[in-house]
Amino acid sequence: MATLQLASWATNLQYANLTTDVLLAANKSFYNWAGCAIGGFASQPAPQIALNTTLGPFSGPATSSILGANGSITHGFADAQLAALVNGIASHVDDYDDTHLETIIHPAGPVASALLAIAEAYGPVTGQDFMTAFIAGVETECKLGLSVWPQHYDVGWHITSTTGAIGAAVAVSKLLSLDTNHTAQAIGIASTQVIGMQAFFGSDTKSFHIGRAAQSGMLAALLAKNGYTSASDALEAKYGWLHVVSTRDNATAYFDQLGKEWEIKKNTFKPYPCGIVMHPAIDGAIQLSNQTHDNNNSIENVKSIELRVNPEVLVLTGKTSPQTGLEGKFSIYHATAIGLLYGEATPSQFTDDVVKNATVVDLRKKVNVTTDEGVPTDAAYVTLRYEDGTELEKHVEHAKGSMENPLTDAELKKKFMEQVTLAIGSERAARATSVDHHSPQIVKKICL
Amino acid sequence: MATLQLASWATNLQYANLTTDVLLAANKSFYNWAGCAIGGFASQPAPQIALNTTLGPFSGPATSSILGANGSITHGFADAQLAALVNGIASHVDDYDDTHLETIIHPAGPVASALLAIAEAYGPVTGQDFMTAFIAGVETECKLGLSVWPQHYDVGWHITSTTGAIGAAVAVSKLLSLDTNHTAQAIGIASTQVIGMQAFFGSDTKSFHIGRAAQSGMLAALLAKNGYTSASDALEAKYGWLHVVSTRDNATAYFDQLGKEWEIKKNTFKPYPCGIVMHPAIDGAIQLSNQTHDNNNSIENVKSIELRVNPEVLVLTGKTSPQTGLEGKFSIYHATAIGLLYGEATPSQFTDDVVKNATVVDLRKKVNVTTDEGVPTDAAYVTLRYEDGTELEKHVEHAKGSMENPLTDAELKKKFMEQVTLAIGSERAARATSVDHHSPQIVKKICL
Repeated sequence: MATLQLASWATNLQYANLTTDVLLAANKSFYNWAGCAIGGFASQPAPQIALNTTLGPFSGPATSSILGANGSITHGFADAQLAALVNGIASHVDDYDDTHLETIIHPAGPVASALLAIAEAYGPVTGQDFMTAFIAGVETECKLGLSVWPQHYDVGWHITSTTGAIGAAVAVSKLLSLDTNHTAQAIGIASTQVIGMQAFFGSDTKSFHIGRAAQSGMLAALLAKNGYTSASDALEAKYGWLHVVSTRDNATAYFDQLGKEWEIKKNTFKPYPCGIVMHPAIDGAIQLSNQTHDNNNSIENVKSIELRVNPEVLVLTGKTSPQTGLEGKFSIYHATAIGLLYGEATPSQFTDDVVKNATVVDLRKKVNVTTDEGVPTDAAYVTLRYEDGTELEKHVEHAKGSMENPLTDAELKKKFMEQVTLAIGSERAARATSVDHHSPQIVKKICL
Repeated sequence: MATLQLASWATNLQYANLTTDVLLAANKSFYNWAGCAIGGFASQPAPQIALNTTLGPFSGPATSSILGANGSITHGFADAQLAALVNGIASHVDDYDDTHLETIIHPAGPVASALLAIAEAYGPVTGQDFMTAFIAGVETECKLGLSVWPQHYDVGWHITSTTGAIGAAVAVSKLLSLDTNHTAQAIGIASTQVIGMQAFFGSDTKSFHIGRAAQSGMLAALLAKNGYTSASDALEAKYGWLHVVSTRDNATAYFDQLGKEWEIKKNTFKPYPCGIVMHPAIDGAIQLSNQTHDNNNSIENVKSIELRVNPEVLVLTGKTSPQTGLEGKFSIYHATAIGLLYGEATPSQFTDDVVKNATVVDLRKKVNVTTDEGVPTDAAYVTLRYEDGTELEKHVEHAKGSMENPLTDAELKKKFMEQVTLAIGSERAARATSVDHHSPQIVKKICL
């Protein structure tokens, strides 16, 4: 019954059901997504290869915006399928997006990328309908993620995209007002496209997962709308999603909490554009960097940097010798070194040049990592050892961006501004942030 | 090393390496694929929904043929991505395609659908280059399938499409002359899109798997061509394809046999448009149907039909009360009943109407299935019990279409003619079959 339960919940969801805190969380998530997509397109090759070199020539009628891509060969627009793909890639390519911490899902990417593209192609759509569909999609992803966590992640699936295709399908189905049965068929068609494995972390293919999930979910909803059949027990069937991609037994219990426990309220925003498990160590390194300036010892005199962190850090971000900016986003060694050296961790510290910089390479070789089950994933102990035997230590209890230490509205705006400035300059970026960001209208205004 | 081993083998494969029996097997496979795609588009709603109602409006420049679709809204052409999707769906929708029996992979669908579409978009391409790429793709699929068989299938994956995306990527990479490294990246991008679960057997989504695999593999090759990065250890990495979708240990051993043991030579062709495990029972039913006519007892006097078959028959085709033609393709009860009643099992016996026909429904209720590990998958014991106590028994040792009892060239031609006639009439179908079918040119001629 999980499939029909989910489809029925989404079909019946009304904007009037949504409380202010749910809507505020959704608006922040969408705002953060838009900034990431715009900045990601401007700063990384992956979305540009996908659009300009590869798929632009295949585009159909250009109904939908590619965020931040005014200068591209398609002048910032493409067909809805291609726009979903490219916006999805761009929104994730900097590893700067939102995070549902319990599942490490980055929920906005697949859902918003599909939804904006289809809203433009099939619109006009009200902001209320858009946000209701967005929330339906995000709740879908996170409940699915909880249902298969952690076994699904532990075997190597990239959970953002494996759940994201289904979330996108539900969101687009909702926007297109499909009934429960058609929404269930869309869930089925989406669920049979399982996108994303962790082998590709640190390459262009990681962000492809998010774009392809957005596109696959949209395609599923469009096919279902037109009567394409799948299975109304797609999720719970013996050879369906929940069993094929997971071995969890009590998988469907979380579906009972749809509309009662809102996952979007737990969505968080990254302060650093890289694997989230490294964030507490980066916090510690940045804090120590500031102290180092007040200290007799300089960075040149650092003998070693000792980290004590949760074991997941090495599982996910254990690259000792990254060769590219993208690989640097999954190297705890690189992340700690740049935090200490630059006193910040922005997209500028995760470029190919910085990853190959001799001083950075030298410093990251001095990073030693000890793992400790007793250290939570949002905590870290960072110790600087100087040549003269002195030490500086930092205990980060809750990383910046965690539930206990979230980004403030001002910080979220600063992050958005930095990213959008890359694409359209600071003046227009300022105009974009001055509009009411409680509506997806913002994106259209940015694109103008 | 599996990924680079596969990429290197494919890159180095030459038409001159291919023996006559390999080429003949490839030509038959392509010929059978073309007939299935043409007939499938003409006879089933799935490819028509995908093209006409859903994705036609998204098509880019229409460079590539949709087989059998001259009358469609796109006049038989679409962009290469869409053509691959629709031809893939059409080629599998009748469950009439080719089968590599050791893995139950239907190899031509994903590979040929991607390859024809890209050849038309990027051509001209010689028949030799086309067939070399086709063979590279088929060998890829089958070696991958062997590497994960049977565990991968047993948990519920649809192995034709899960391996098919990678086969299509290798084939398109070969046709576009990518080097080993770029081909490896293409394998990576394809492998992270795992399409197809068995929950959808009996619905439109089953054939979607094949089309989406074709499209995903093509997309992977195009992205890789343009420098999109993935991982050169995509298959064997701890969180890569072989481990995430399978628990087999000795997975890569089959790669050593690339170019030594040719899988395409083991490709077989279905005489009946339905799940292949039912074929021996259908053979028996058809033979008994012929005998019944010579018998004092008529079909009305049949009390029961007793089947003794391999256990896989009930696992894959155990639908007791199919409601649609597509479901009938996965019902051993329906298949046995129509074999007995009509003396044949063609697309005409797997329509919604026949599945709901009262006489058929009545007869299929009389079918009893006993499973027996000792009965091979290509064998069956079929016994008719009449009201008067008499019995007729058939032991089918090797089903029609098996390695030991293959379709003759004449039978393959008859099958092709039947399917193509559906789309373009018997006169043009006859012209199509009169051309040399040792070249993909045939498809262009059919489409004219």
